[in-house]
Amino acid sequence: MASGDVDEIQVAESSFISSSRNDRVPSEYRDDENTEDDVSGDDQSTETLGGSIGRRNGTMARQKLEKGKKIGHRRVGVGGEITYKKIQTSQIMGSIQLGIQHAVGGLASKPERDLLMQDFMTVETTVFAADGSNHTPAHHYSEFTFKTYAPIAFRYFRDLFGIQPDDFLISFCSAPLRELSNPGASGSIFYVTEDDEFIMKTVQHKEGEFLQKLLPGYYMNLNQNPRTLLPKFFGLYCYQCNSKNIRLVAMNNLLPSYVALHQKYDLKGSTYKRKASKAERQKKSPTFKDLDFMEHHPDGIFLEADTYTALNKTIQRDCRVLESFKIMDYSLLLGIHNLDQALREKLEQKKNSMHVEGDEAGGPSSGSVSLNRTRSINRQRLVAHSTAMESIQAESEPIDEEEDVPLVALYFHFKSIQNY
Amino acid sequence: MASGDVDEIQVAESSFISSSRNDRVPSEYRDDENTEDDVSGDDQSTETLGGSIGRRNGTMARQKLEKGKKIGHRRVGVGGEITYKKIQTSQIMGSIQLGIQHAVGGLASKPERDLLMQDFMTVETTVFAADGSNHTPAHHYSEFTFKTYAPIAFRYFRDLFGIQPDDFLISFCSAPLRELSNPGASGSIFYVTEDDEFIMKTVQHKEGEFLQKLLPGYYMNLNQNPRTLLPKFFGLYCYQCNSKNIRLVAMNNLLPSYVALHQKYDLKGSTYKRKASKAERQKKSPTFKDLDFMEHHPDGIFLEADTYTALNKTIQRDCRVLESFKIMDYSLLLGIHNLDQALREKLEQKKNSMHVEGDEAGGPSSGSVSLNRTRSINRQRLVAHSTAMESIQAESEPIDEEEDVPLVALYFHFKSIQNY
Repeated sequence: MASGDVDEIQVAESSFISSSRNDRVPSEYRDDENTEDDVSGDDQSTETLGGSIGRRNGTMARQKLEKGKKIGHRRVGVGGEITYKKIQTSQIMGSIQLGIQHAVGGLASKPERDLLMQDFMTVETTVFAADGSNHTPAHHYSEFTFKTYAPIAFRYFRDLFGIQPDDFLISFCSAPLRELSNPGASGSIFYVTEDDEFIMKTVQHKEGEFLQKLLPGYYMNLNQNPRTLLPKFFGLYCYQCNSKNIRLVAMNNLLPSYVALHQKYDLKGSTYKRKASKAERQKKSPTFKDLDFMEHHPDGIFLEADTYTALNKTIQRDCRVLESFKIMDYSLLLGIHNLDQALREKLEQKKNSMHVEGDEAGGPSSGSVSLNRTRSINRQRLVAHSTAMESIQAESEPIDEEEDVPLVALYFHFKSIQNY
Repeated sequence: MASGDVDEIQVAESSFISSSRNDRVPSEYRDDENTEDDVSGDDQSTETLGGSIGRRNGTMARQKLEKGKKIGHRRVGVGGEITYKKIQTSQIMGSIQLGIQHAVGGLASKPERDLLMQDFMTVETTVFAADGSNHTPAHHYSEFTFKTYAPIAFRYFRDLFGIQPDDFLISFCSAPLRELSNPGASGSIFYVTEDDEFIMKTVQHKEGEFLQKLLPGYYMNLNQNPRTLLPKFFGLYCYQCNSKNIRLVAMNNLLPSYVALHQKYDLKGSTYKRKASKAERQKKSPTFKDLDFMEHHPDGIFLEADTYTALNKTIQRDCRVLESFKIMDYSLLLGIHNLDQALREKLEQKKNSMHVEGDEAGGPSSGSVSLNRTRSINRQRLVAHSTAMESIQAESEPIDEEEDVPLVALYFHFKSIQNY
């Protein structure tokens, strides 16, 4: 990248357990499950997991080829029903909502205080009997145990990221979670909150342990390097049922659905077989790689000198932290939001909406005004606290419609906590 | 304590490995070596270690009763010579000055960067051959090895406390250290820098290990609770010679010689046998205890409401940190600087100095102007960064002579890292 004048808005963000908020299947998700693609050179080996996800009704549009398939612990039955470790995904989703409600809600009674080293090591365990108890509600799922790792530490992190407890609860518990249909090579499951703000991802035992061990270093990085592009972790949980452990990590959704990313790149700084596969290119929103970037942007992307310097420094600091964690498989997710293209799309959308405006008035949304308002505040807060935006956002001409301020265009994505 | 109007200036500070800067023998030093006095009720058991310390010539005025005595590893020979683990104290002092010069000076080549978890665990080891080497100077002491624990972490702490590397080096290495003559019950040795800014104290193996383990939690406290009254640690070292290990910790000198403390209290919040001993009371500057405080200040000390609230909160937060470290033996050092008394003393001093002014002009001090200036800047910086002063300093009428601004009156003193 070179520094210079800008005609695009840039923002950086990142994740080492990848996450996304997007209607399209985020192909970044696959990458952390398929980390050997550079080594094996097998760029074609990524699964074809396709289609768009039905957002509003909580069900997935699943392609036929998925059915009857098992990847890792995730199995798709012949009827299309999904299980993880032989537990129905709907049961997992419902149970973890109960667990989070209890864990985060219960924190309200614990006054805010300074974080201590011990707080990284604590685990809170609650049994959820089907009939309920003094502390837990009755439910129609199998009896389960819900473990919350480092609850005080994650409360501190959420607070640092500007996530109020109520907003976190509303996002996670006021509406059913959606499951993304892209399990990735290892068969991780991704749940997205209905408001698109948060991701919940299953992690393996070792990953969960590793993340827990990282917490003190993660804390240090957040304190010293508030513009870090590393992912935001909001919680680490374990759902136990039928003698099975399902560990989950809550993160921010990297790709906000309200900002279209017209181009996406997964960059590793290597040119060796770093070209998006044919299958990837044919997608509606493909994620390109280093060689594609060089082809599309032979002169690089122009950033203001200050932005360029700040971004470079942030990347260096983040890389040093990743190195100290002994994580060597990560990449930078670069998303480009093209202002001209966005304006064209906006105008087109307006034309179309004028045709159907009559149909949309009224409808079910009117009943959820208060919730929507909260979500919108929450979203603004998330955006306001996105370290990426603060550090990398560049100057642009003011745009008269506030709703359309193009906040995001450059995304950074450090991925893979699991390859250490 | 009650809140209300103030006619004194208050400042808080603290130490859990105790330290002091004062001409008088700081009786606080003894307390952390004699931590069972509440349990045993043996308040009279504190040793009579007396006299004032010759500050300018680096030698100690030692009372006869000390001679031939051995407390812990510290031995006073019949001729008055002091050894620690059978190594002459002068050799220890000279060697650690070489070690610090090398360790802190060597850091200059390492660029500033974010602190990582690993930095708390690192140890840097340098062999100081008597003939010198490519990296170390020749010297006239026995060959020794100098270990610096967590050098990058302590650089970070020093920076946080506003101590520039050059100032630290000048304080520690540009003039001989002075040894305090109060070894305390366990026989720790205290060295004070010639400018009275820093203390170096020998610690036992377990204490050193414990401090090293505390560092991540210590870091967290400094970040979250910048007004903490806990002591400032600037370095942890090990001097190895003749197969002996002498571990040392560098700290701030709690009792600045430039501010007279007219009353000092070591407070534990208990009234059980908490009365200063007869011997203590007969000293020029005794350290009283809880019962004495209640007698001298039956209505408590009046602080402004805001100061009182801030102080209370800080103490609560510090106590929680000490509790998390499983430290239960600590006390609060309360020092009172009486403005009226200080003014009277000042006037008296002026009268006296007018008589002897002729003698003082010229003299050896003129040769060290530049060093003195640096020290003065350093001192101001230390003062400026004293969390205590920021948090607890109360309002007072402005005093026209800058030199005499009474910065200190209330001191806080958490002591004893060794009783865990």
